[in-house]
Amino acid sequence: MPNTVICSVGTSAARRVCSPANLAAWVKEQGGAEQAGRALFNSFADVLPQGAALQDTLSAEINSLVRIGVQPSDRVILLASDTSDGQACACAVALYLQKYFPGILVEIHCIKGLQVHDAELFRREGVVNYVRYCLRAIHDFGESQVILNPTGGYKALVPYTVLIGMIKHVPCRYIFEQSSQLLTLPPLPVVFDRGPFERYRSLIERIERETAIPGDVWEQEVRYDDRVLLEPLVERTPTEVTLSAVGLLLLDEVRMPTVLVPFLSRKAWEDCLDNLCQLRDCNPFRFLLRIAADRHQFRLAEHINAGNGLRWLKPGRTTDRYLISVEDWRLLVWRAIREDQVGSDYPHKVTVDPNKDRKRLGPFTRLEFADNEK
Amino acid sequence: MPNTVICSVGTSAARRVCSPANLAAWVKEQGGAEQAGRALFNSFADVLPQGAALQDTLSAEINSLVRIGVQPSDRVILLASDTSDGQACACAVALYLQKYFPGILVEIHCIKGLQVHDAELFRREGVVNYVRYCLRAIHDFGESQVILNPTGGYKALVPYTVLIGMIKHVPCRYIFEQSSQLLTLPPLPVVFDRGPFERYRSLIERIERETAIPGDVWEQEVRYDDRVLLEPLVERTPTEVTLSAVGLLLLDEVRMPTVLVPFLSRKAWEDCLDNLCQLRDCNPFRFLLRIAADRHQFRLAEHINAGNGLRWLKPGRTTDRYLISVEDWRLLVWRAIREDQVGSDYPHKVTVDPNKDRKRLGPFTRLEFADNEK
Repeated sequence: MPNTVICSVGTSAARRVCSPANLAAWVKEQGGAEQAGRALFNSFADVLPQGAALQDTLSAEINSLVRIGVQPSDRVILLASDTSDGQACACAVALYLQKYFPGILVEIHCIKGLQVHDAELFRREGVVNYVRYCLRAIHDFGESQVILNPTGGYKALVPYTVLIGMIKHVPCRYIFEQSSQLLTLPPLPVVFDRGPFERYRSLIERIERETAIPGDVWEQEVRYDDRVLLEPLVERTPTEVTLSAVGLLLLDEVRMPTVLVPFLSRKAWEDCLDNLCQLRDCNPFRFLLRIAADRHQFRLAEHINAGNGLRWLKPGRTTDRYLISVEDWRLLVWRAIREDQVGSDYPHKVTVDPNKDRKRLGPFTRLEFADNEK
Repeated sequence: MPNTVICSVGTSAARRVCSPANLAAWVKEQGGAEQAGRALFNSFADVLPQGAALQDTLSAEINSLVRIGVQPSDRVILLASDTSDGQACACAVALYLQKYFPGILVEIHCIKGLQVHDAELFRREGVVNYVRYCLRAIHDFGESQVILNPTGGYKALVPYTVLIGMIKHVPCRYIFEQSSQLLTLPPLPVVFDRGPFERYRSLIERIERETAIPGDVWEQEVRYDDRVLLEPLVERTPTEVTLSAVGLLLLDEVRMPTVLVPFLSRKAWEDCLDNLCQLRDCNPFRFLLRIAADRHQFRLAEHINAGNGLRWLKPGRTTDRYLISVEDWRLLVWRAIREDQVGSDYPHKVTVDPNKDRKRLGPFTRLEFADNEK
């Protein structure tokens, strides 16, 4: 399946033509980003993407994309700064890729607020928009098909690229310093602790909806104890609060979780521990953890729609059945029963009203044991 | 309280004296790293650490340390590359800090394997040793007193510095590109999923103990399904497996957790839900989560040593009591009782043998609810 490589773009495509300090003026002289991009492309259009030229003559983006093994069937998303020199370099890289990888899909996006002169603007807009583009691509093309490549572009983007990779389970691949070698930071077993975030979710969604809220609303709504935890999620001016790049990333992961986490009702815990676990060859917990972590397996196990957002899951040719619902990133397990005990009519015999029965069956607590042998 | 700033060191201290490409030769000419460091220091010793000079004349490390607000009472740990030019620059930075911040503690460590020519050596040794030094400083001085500063030094260290900051809950602060402005990446609510790690903990500890194990032992011991999850934790050659920088970091966090996670025995869940929760003004879950996240609060609540690693906790002038033990990063809650019901002699009446009673009282499951109102 084709890959999508998301690639931040710097000015190294221009390094043989012009020094970074004079690049903006040079681009202007050429008549703008597009013409300058074409001129830059012409300066290395005949250099083949191989051997020492990758490192010595071609740009950091081209070097890294070739080492990653980009193919004509792939897609490359070039994220350029909000400056004419950054855009010119992105144009040159795109033209080069289209020449040597015919058919390749190349998109250029100029990221509003992404520049090096104003850290405040970078934080409040540039990096927020950068994260937004990365997330959109991950959703559009799927996390298993996406590679993040922060080789080119600003060093200040690297920490955010790493965070996106960790939270969304996408690998980061980049060229090691000025070498020909590729380093990979694979997705790590890292999850974020959604507790503090969830308590303020409606406030955070309001900031997203309204772009900014007054600072005093934030002060009123956020408990003093929670401020330290929540500060990373927002950017503040003396009067306003906006969503930070980190806030945007975590809000996205709450809404479109990469994996689900199972929570069992107190009744479902009893069902499993006192009944299903007595069966030979039945491990309800392993089944639930497996399908929560894998959307494909989850869909295979879906058996009967019980209405009201509830579904019965069936692991295969077994007798255990699970009545579940999904709330954001949580897989709620309401009941776990045996068909051989209840009978094939179980969907009509075991019924739950999610609104009325939540208290009676609950609380729902997380499926995670202190012992590994479970 | 004084801060400790951990600072990766590059070669920007030499940028006014010599180009990066010729620096190693220049250092040799001077008679070695120490003499060259002194010569570099002399080239900017009279430039005050203020105004435009910070950005224009002084090194990236000095610029960032001054913007971070380093004081004479602080400690700065300079992590230099395994090269004579890196060490010369670190010497120059140290001499400068000692001149302008008299009394400041400055340590220089040369990180074995940290260089730009060999990505393999960087991965297998350089970055592993870098992580080791950072972790040691965090343990020695406490995560609330440490700041990570990856402004200077190799770009390839930035992702690892970010990971350390996330997992150990330490802020990263760095200068935004070539500006005078500081960016801060605060600790985020991120935790790592210890499940897959724990299943192989003894194998991972063996690699750490023996430095390397044969590749075929790894293949035999790690289940096929688990390989993708475990690959980030190790580095592989055709014949050997060693611990990666990420593996070292996660092993450290399993052994010396920044926060504890509470797990309740099935009996303790019943104790809480059916008994303690009936009391007005008693929220056992909030208490347990609070003390698990805060070592100081935990120590304040410790009441009676019950032997065998078990302790009774007392929240304050209340009647609820908790029999707990700590296993690595887990806070196990064995029982939760009311003194007004059991009597002041409760430590003798309610007893647990952790070896014998684990099955009877268990399983222990994680204290985390699907509803926030709990």
